[in-house]
Amino acid sequence: MSVRRKAVCLLSGGLDSSACLAFARREGFDCYALSFDYGQRHRAELAAAARVAVQLGAAKHITVTIDLRLFGGSALTADMDVPKHRNAEEMGQGIPITYVPARNTIFLSYALAWAEVLGAADIFIGVNAIDYSGYPDCRPEYIDAFVRMANLATKAGVEGSTNLQIHTPLIELSKAGIVKLAAELGVDFALTHSCYDPNADGRSCGECDSCLLRKKGFAEAGIADGVRYVS
Amino acid sequence: MSVRRKAVCLLSGGLDSSACLAFARREGFDCYALSFDYGQRHRAELAAAARVAVQLGAAKHITVTIDLRLFGGSALTADMDVPKHRNAEEMGQGIPITYVPARNTIFLSYALAWAEVLGAADIFIGVNAIDYSGYPDCRPEYIDAFVRMANLATKAGVEGSTNLQIHTPLIELSKAGIVKLAAELGVDFALTHSCYDPNADGRSCGECDSCLLRKKGFAEAGIADGVRYVS
Repeated sequence: MSVRRKAVCLLSGGLDSSACLAFARREGFDCYALSFDYGQRHRAELAAAARVAVQLGAAKHITVTIDLRLFGGSALTADMDVPKHRNAEEMGQGIPITYVPARNTIFLSYALAWAEVLGAADIFIGVNAIDYSGYPDCRPEYIDAFVRMANLATKAGVEGSTNLQIHTPLIELSKAGIVKLAAELGVDFALTHSCYDPNADGRSCGECDSCLLRKKGFAEAGIADGVRYVS
Repeated sequence: MSVRRKAVCLLSGGLDSSACLAFARREGFDCYALSFDYGQRHRAELAAAARVAVQLGAAKHITVTIDLRLFGGSALTADMDVPKHRNAEEMGQGIPITYVPARNTIFLSYALAWAEVLGAADIFIGVNAIDYSGYPDCRPEYIDAFVRMANLATKAGVEGSTNLQIHTPLIELSKAGIVKLAAELGVDFALTHSCYDPNADGRSCGECDSCLLRKKGFAEAGIADGVRYVS
């Protein structure tokens, strides 16, 4: 009988991380889903993460509270307006103010800690370098550098018992490609949440970068989005 | 008039991080001291960090609460006994159970986030590769890999406006050398705290690895330790 391998899967509750978790499950991993309450404005995604973890059969789901608001510096955590109605060209120019400083580095560091405690050698993260909205910590060269650092950081890496890998199954997919993959893997889209600026009822605005990318992805994939938008 | 440079300085409240902060101050940096409440058993060090930050003139001091206990896995955060009375040979063999998974990676990730918000290009950390008690994330090759990753992770690094550096002024010093440097820089030893397992009054046990290394350092430096030990 083969021993099932454990993997830590970062899960925001959005389309991409849900697709990534579904991918890890299909690869046969026991998945330990990790979410973060980082004072994000779009806290509806935490409820989405919990729903998705159950739907996709995660072995465990932990939400870690971290307070990036102490440092400020992003429209997603501070008191700045989320930009709306930007076209693809505008999104492609520079790094948006919705960028959270060192976010993926902090998230992956926690994933690394949990992986070490679990004895897991695999971390899954749904980063995407195509429709990535300009975040530097979504690029392959960043992920590669993190892996190198991580294997020097840990007891498991130093002792050679574990060679950590970070899996980025979505990194070269377009948003439409991610939608198609997620559909194939059985992700229930209605459970997911992508919007940066939902209204008080948790409904997606339909106008922020994240909603616009999502809507475009579903339109291009020719698949129905289970999410209902305010506009 | 020259603009003073800002630096984020990791400050546990122990001897090493206090010496490191004092070093950064002497180098002329405005220091933003960063401590972590990570559920450590030796919480007396957080009070020490606050005292030391004031004594050494930090521009600001923030304590971030992070909960590594969710993951378990270390005698410093979980319900395991802290090893006592180990000699140098025993400390040098393998990685002790007081190792906290990915701790410095998580700490440096937060430092990176704060540095980016401050527009700071400098982080100071008091790691030490000589009397380092066997932690993998205290070695120069680990620090170098973190810097490389960090400069790929951030808006500032990608845009080329900031080339992040991590300063490790203690990395090649013996514990006695750190004691001498700290004395020269005016650190008030009585304010610092090193013990992994203090008693209810916050007094240092004198028997854990950290106390033993500290006592040996002061003895070899021929300098009086301001801390009173239980034994």
